Amino acid sequence: MKFTKMQGCGNDYVYVDCTKEVIEHIPETAVKVSDRHFGIGSDGLILIKSSETADFFMDMYNNDGSRGKMCGNGIRCVAKYVYDYGLTNKEHLRIETLSGIKELDLILQDGKVSQVTVNMGAPILQPSLIPVVSDKDVLIKEPITIDGQRYEITCVSMGNPHAVVFVEDTSSLPIEVIGPKFENHPIFPDRVNTEFIQIIDRTHIRMRVWERGSGETFACGTGACASVVACVLNGLTEPEVTVTLLGGDLSIRYDQKENTIYMTGPAVKVYEGEIEL
Amino acid sequence: MKFTKMQGCGNDYVYVDCTKEVIEHIPETAVKVSDRHFGIGSDGLILIKSSETADFFMDMYNNDGSRGKMCGNGIRCVAKYVYDYGLTNKEHLRIETLSGIKELDLILQDGKVSQVTVNMGAPILQPSLIPVVSDKDVLIKEPITIDGQRYEITCVSMGNPHAVVFVEDTSSLPIEVIGPKFENHPIFPDRVNTEFIQIIDRTHIRMRVWERGSGETFACGTGACASVVACVLNGLTEPEVTVTLLGGDLSIRYDQKENTIYMTGPAVKVYEGEIEL
Repeated sequence: MKFTKMQGCGNDYVYVDCTKEVIEHIPETAVKVSDRHFGIGSDGLILIKSSETADFFMDMYNNDGSRGKMCGNGIRCVAKYVYDYGLTNKEHLRIETLSGIKELDLILQDGKVSQVTVNMGAPILQPSLIPVVSDKDVLIKEPITIDGQRYEITCVSMGNPHAVVFVEDTSSLPIEVIGPKFENHPIFPDRVNTEFIQIIDRTHIRMRVWERGSGETFACGTGACASVVACVLNGLTEPEVTVTLLGGDLSIRYDQKENTIYMTGPAVKVYEGEIEL
Repeated sequence: MKFTKMQGCGNDYVYVDCTKEVIEHIPETAVKVSDRHFGIGSDGLILIKSSETADFFMDMYNNDGSRGKMCGNGIRCVAKYVYDYGLTNKEHLRIETLSGIKELDLILQDGKVSQVTVNMGAPILQPSLIPVVSDKDVLIKEPITIDGQRYEITCVSMGNPHAVVFVEDTSSLPIEVIGPKFENHPIFPDRVNTEFIQIIDRTHIRMRVWERGSGETFACGTGACASVVACVLNGLTEPEVTVTLLGGDLSIRYDQKENTIYMTGPAVKVYEGEIEL
């Protein structure tokens, strides 16, 4: 099986062109290739397929073999793959995912894709839809007690639930200790992803994220979007912000007129390989 | 740069044929390719070079860019690489390392190397040479108190220091808690690798290892050798033993007449790739 290893903000997948390759036993293959010592090593396997309703279909599998719906860092790499390998010459792409069709715009450098902008859709603020247990219409700067300490959360769904917390300094944060306590707090019936945000200035924030089920990760695209919505709702930043994550920078623009969020970030080819399965 | 990813008991390196490839800035390259999210992902980089005194020279670099001397799991893969890619047709090889020249015997299956036996040399039992602080001639079943609990250690050097501890059950062992306490105990001036051994029967043991500077690892070739020496010295096993590690099985034979230890284990090619540096 020929593959390309790609990453966006350190979120790395094995990409396979399934317009050419046929893969059997996909969940088992995803588990096998994802293993970081016995396999290729990745966060999962992304199969690029043709689509009847869009330009391509992103079929993604996590490193445990389960099927993923959508990944903001992954879909940027799919866009780079199809353009750089000549599967398309379009600079605006529609890519089908299990979360619907996503619209992407390519940013080129020397004829290759360097950055991709993804339309991430509208934020959801209604507590029952996030979901978070509350009688209020929105949860902005809402007090919550974690481990005896008081925090304020702003809750946003980007298709998945986020609690955004503003802190003085992300670098000294004991995220392994407090992350799981946010994740499993009873007001979040489906658990929650928690973003810890340090405001650098009105167009630049620093973020660390604790993802439900995964712990701290290098980057979370929906988390960066939710965080900028929270910043705007709290009057802390402009609607266009650079988010510095452990794995790199994402540029987030919250278009309040359209009620739509655009995420721009890198897509990097690391290497090409061939493995016998 | 063309490379092959190989692993032995889960100990994985990026292998490059430097009889063909020229690599500049080697420590930086080792750090870059070893990164498991932004690079290829490995425990380090092993360069296969020609040698003036042996068949080949194994030049190894750890994932922090520092130079390694010798790795039992790595050298088996070097042997598989040079035979399977046709750089040699010898089934007995002498490979130069920074710890001296090692003798290897290849075990073939369908014309390719499946297992390799490495002459790991003689065990050292003299405390001052291991080093461990003691007035005794050898340390066999020596009591030591760790965190208020009494253990018995048998100390062996295989070029690096090992403390072997016999336990009832390796699976329930809180190795993250006790490993560092053995590692940093003041009787080990250079710190120590600690092997926790469960005796299955007289020809089969189970091992978990806490490596100094690395924490728990999938496998440690010198640790498996030291453990079988300790088993024999304590009368617990025969001199030929299968050691089941987290990353797979090693077969260790302690030839007491020759005072030499032979380690036999797998060498696996995972995939081939090409990366732009």
